[in-house]
Amino acid sequence: MKPIEDCVIGIVGLGLMGGAVAMALRNCGAAGGALIGNSDTAAGGPVKGGLNNGAGRGRLLACDTDAETLKAALAEAVIDEGFSSPENMLPRCDLVFLCLNPSTLLRFLDTWMPAFKPLALITDIAGIKGNIVEAVETGLRPDLDFIPGHPMAGAEKGSFGNAKHVSFRGKNYILTPLKRNKSENLECLKALIYRMGFGRIIETTAAEHDSKIAFTSQLCHVIAAALIDCESDTGITRFGGGSFEDLTRIAMLNAPMWTELFLENRRELLGRIEQFEKSLDKLKNYIADEAEAALQENLLEVRERRTAMSG
Amino acid sequence: MKPIEDCVIGIVGLGLMGGAVAMALRNCGAAGGALIGNSDTAAGGPVKGGLNNGAGRGRLLACDTDAETLKAALAEAVIDEGFSSPENMLPRCDLVFLCLNPSTLLRFLDTWMPAFKPLALITDIAGIKGNIVEAVETGLRPDLDFIPGHPMAGAEKGSFGNAKHVSFRGKNYILTPLKRNKSENLECLKALIYRMGFGRIIETTAAEHDSKIAFTSQLCHVIAAALIDCESDTGITRFGGGSFEDLTRIAMLNAPMWTELFLENRRELLGRIEQFEKSLDKLKNYIADEAEAALQENLLEVRERRTAMSG
Repeated sequence: MKPIEDCVIGIVGLGLMGGAVAMALRNCGAAGGALIGNSDTAAGGPVKGGLNNGAGRGRLLACDTDAETLKAALAEAVIDEGFSSPENMLPRCDLVFLCLNPSTLLRFLDTWMPAFKPLALITDIAGIKGNIVEAVETGLRPDLDFIPGHPMAGAEKGSFGNAKHVSFRGKNYILTPLKRNKSENLECLKALIYRMGFGRIIETTAAEHDSKIAFTSQLCHVIAAALIDCESDTGITRFGGGSFEDLTRIAMLNAPMWTELFLENRRELLGRIEQFEKSLDKLKNYIADEAEAALQENLLEVRERRTAMSG
Repeated sequence: MKPIEDCVIGIVGLGLMGGAVAMALRNCGAAGGALIGNSDTAAGGPVKGGLNNGAGRGRLLACDTDAETLKAALAEAVIDEGFSSPENMLPRCDLVFLCLNPSTLLRFLDTWMPAFKPLALITDIAGIKGNIVEAVETGLRPDLDFIPGHPMAGAEKGSFGNAKHVSFRGKNYILTPLKRNKSENLECLKALIYRMGFGRIIETTAAEHDSKIAFTSQLCHVIAAALIDCESDTGITRFGGGSFEDLTRIAMLNAPMWTELFLENRRELLGRIEQFEKSLDKLKNYIADEAEAALQENLLEVRERRTAMSG
């Protein structure tokens, strides 16, 4: 892999996350952009450098079906070139970020496999990894390298216009590398992720990813949705002190994408919902039975465990 | 009621919230303190003014059973005088903030009723109002005026030492006034609450307070506790992207106080838990049945409702 400044990097799908990835790549000096400030401060946000200034020989390209998005990204100097179809972009890219919903991603790979540049490195950002790893392990063109990834960041409101609100700073980035991945490609991607501002990279299996994410992400979104579902009074926030707002902010979710994630990972997610229901039931029974000592002891344990989780 | 600058104000219980109330009172110029900056910027936080500088004739007093807390509050110029027992403090106070857990509060009122200054105004900050309103309506000394209140603010870590982390800025403050409250006292307290930095005062009944708070506050704490209860891996935050952290921050709760709040308001809280369980079950069934259209429609409704709640 050539130096990242000299790479041509392509973003497929310039939505909320694709846009944030593009901004972070530009700001950290990858793909020909100027390196602005310390590399560890790079993250999503308005582009600080301006159009490719030739600091490297690389270019930042993007394809999206929405012409307005491409126009905006070009006007804001987030990308060097925009494409309405990947046909002419993919053959030029040393590295491709697939920033699509899981099902779209699999269809895209299937359709455009022949168009990728020989020996290209591909990665994705989808919130579920099992099905993607399976597809890549069985069907990828032999010369290509695909490292599945999941940046643990986002924002309530979707689309490229909100990408500047996504912060990568100090966030977790999960990679589920395959045995066939070239170690130099993996090192190159990891270095780039840190340059984009992420604080920690976790390398794990797709199975562990999907199990843990079912808890930390999907279950939390289901709970937030259920909390909003069970209260029709939209004036309820007059009685809010922060807890309700914090627990339900993520209920402003991208419904089609989360439907896909919930269903695709349903086995893990249903298991997590059931575990949660058991714990909720236990607390409910303590309250109904006025089991003061048991309730207080349970709350103390919870406090200690949550405090340990922060450490 | 005399001008608030000239009032002697007493705080009973200088814990997290009592300390935050004292800091906000001092910073907003009540009880003899200097008014620092705009009144609407006053809130909890380190005292900006310094010891009572005589801008008014008032004084800020506090009693607490912990000698170290009083020493710290005096050293930080948060209060003018500290008392280990309310005996010598209460007879001097025009306005008293009872910053105690609900059960302690009721015992305190019962024990110290004779010691309050004639015509004193009393208020509290407890997170449940039904039992307090009942006690006050039946047992208060006839010359005293008690306006029950609930500032919707807090912090994960308790005690006076963390009071500076509590922000009142723009927060909600619920009052459940009684028919017997003097209107001039109510106006005086409301003006003071806004000066302390709160953004909105909601006047309602104790019954409505307890019903709404069972949802916005207590149910959220039960859910956060259940989420932590059902996962023993304290390294799970390596897979966190913010949702899990936001949903469970309040699980670092004050176990004895929340045990009391849950049990005291158990009828309302159990009703809210059951409503939530129904919504959770509905979502779970959509996922189990792979009911894609219904799930997506439900998530869209949730998104719209939560967005309306923010407005």
